[in-house]
Amino acid sequence: MLEQLTILAPGLIGASVARAARARGAARRIVLWARRPETRLALRGEPWCSATGETPEEAVEGADLVVIAAPVDRIAPLVHQIAPRLKAGAVVCDVGSVKGEISRLGHDALHGNAHFVGAHPMAGSEKTGWEHGSADLFQGRICFVTPLASTHAEAVAKVVEFWRELGAEVVTVDPDKHDEIVAHISHLPQVLASSLCAFLATREPGWRNFAGGGLRDTTRIAASDSKLWTTILEQNRDEVLRALRHFQDELEGIQAALANRDFIEVAARLERGRAYRDKFRPTS
Amino acid sequence: MLEQLTILAPGLIGASVARAARARGAARRIVLWARRPETRLALRGEPWCSATGETPEEAVEGADLVVIAAPVDRIAPLVHQIAPRLKAGAVVCDVGSVKGEISRLGHDALHGNAHFVGAHPMAGSEKTGWEHGSADLFQGRICFVTPLASTHAEAVAKVVEFWRELGAEVVTVDPDKHDEIVAHISHLPQVLASSLCAFLATREPGWRNFAGGGLRDTTRIAASDSKLWTTILEQNRDEVLRALRHFQDELEGIQAALANRDFIEVAARLERGRAYRDKFRPTS
Repeated sequence: MLEQLTILAPGLIGASVARAARARGAARRIVLWARRPETRLALRGEPWCSATGETPEEAVEGADLVVIAAPVDRIAPLVHQIAPRLKAGAVVCDVGSVKGEISRLGHDALHGNAHFVGAHPMAGSEKTGWEHGSADLFQGRICFVTPLASTHAEAVAKVVEFWRELGAEVVTVDPDKHDEIVAHISHLPQVLASSLCAFLATREPGWRNFAGGGLRDTTRIAASDSKLWTTILEQNRDEVLRALRHFQDELEGIQAALANRDFIEVAARLERGRAYRDKFRPTS
Repeated sequence: MLEQLTILAPGLIGASVARAARARGAARRIVLWARRPETRLALRGEPWCSATGETPEEAVEGADLVVIAAPVDRIAPLVHQIAPRLKAGAVVCDVGSVKGEISRLGHDALHGNAHFVGAHPMAGSEKTGWEHGSADLFQGRICFVTPLASTHAEAVAKVVEFWRELGAEVVTVDPDKHDEIVAHISHLPQVLASSLCAFLATREPGWRNFAGGGLRDTTRIAASDSKLWTTILEQNRDEVLRALRHFQDELEGIQAALANRDFIEVAARLERGRAYRDKFRPTS
């Protein structure tokens, strides 16, 4: 059990970390900092908040583990801001969807006094805001932990152990490999869902009232926060562009097969997709 | 209440029609025909099956309403086959995902003795087979009914009333307009989900084990029967190709914005998608 866990900028994910940590006894004391004073006031009324700090620096004092739950473009600046106030040996992790640059900047900012270890739980919702947090959000879900080769091994072990305590299945992977993976399994699906909706909006918008379960599921994540996703796509631009280009080749392949009335090829492509989807792990 | 409802070739949808009709008292007698003798035997043990016919012709004798639940390429041949045995004034509908050609062929096959009215409930599952049918499958879902201008008005009213009794919300629309609509809101999403999975299968297949809820939802329908979908895409090829081409323009737009680092444009596109998705009707 950690003596003190500090969570900076809790939204859906950060509040879920706090709730899960309280529910599972992962930390004796949970200190939160949010940018807006009214949010700090509201957080103080929650049973999973021991105290709030007026500033990030104040909130991290005495923390064993700091979780930065801010949007990806705010993580590195926060690490810099808190660096001088971290106790020796403190560990800092984040929950950002992109890991390459953040892992390197985080590592460099802490000069070995404290340790940065990138993390990315594959859990979320199209909803945002700390009010929607849940103690079970990470249960059975993947959490990537992305140390550099030079990251302090005990710090890595501490972060791995923490996410396991919250219920996640931890996968340790190089930060750049992580970015390649999520470009494919998270960022590309987001671009497709959003683009499908943006496209349908240009047709007769009333058609959405006819949507069956297929369209609903396929586009659910298109309801996600567009600013948040713009920042993610910006940070992982090169990998997303690469995945998108290769996906377009696939799409042009089925289009050509349809255009040529080559329905054997159409069927083969649908079947390849079906066989892949069929082997997804059952949800726990 | 219908005196006799006959359902030909019940799979997931046809069995759900039978279950819903029994549960809601829409028909006194429900007669089924399935191609395979062992299926007919199994169906006779179900409480929502009054009797089975050995042939489609035998099953439709005396029916007030016949629902053809076969795949889209088998519907018109079945209408031809049963035409001589339908009682005067009988109404035939189907549940196929494509309506233009089927509505015209069905109409022509019955010569005004009986009446064909196309129907397409927007309900289903990635599962197939009559065993997975459910009496609630149509509750609160859209069902398209697609009469021709020349279709007998009382027959249309009968089919509309039937689907309403099963719990569906009926939308009456021209068959060709229907095909344009579903190319966008059903067939295009299927092609995208399948192509996304087919593409990911060419990368490291083990990445699927890291899938979060976003990828799961976005690709759920990719697990659907590939043969069934090939037939649907074949029948609605022109409309699907048109929708696919226009969607690709949308995708190239966001790709260009990313490539040019025009994140204001990226954000605008994501936001356009979000605003569209946000206005989906809540599921009932």
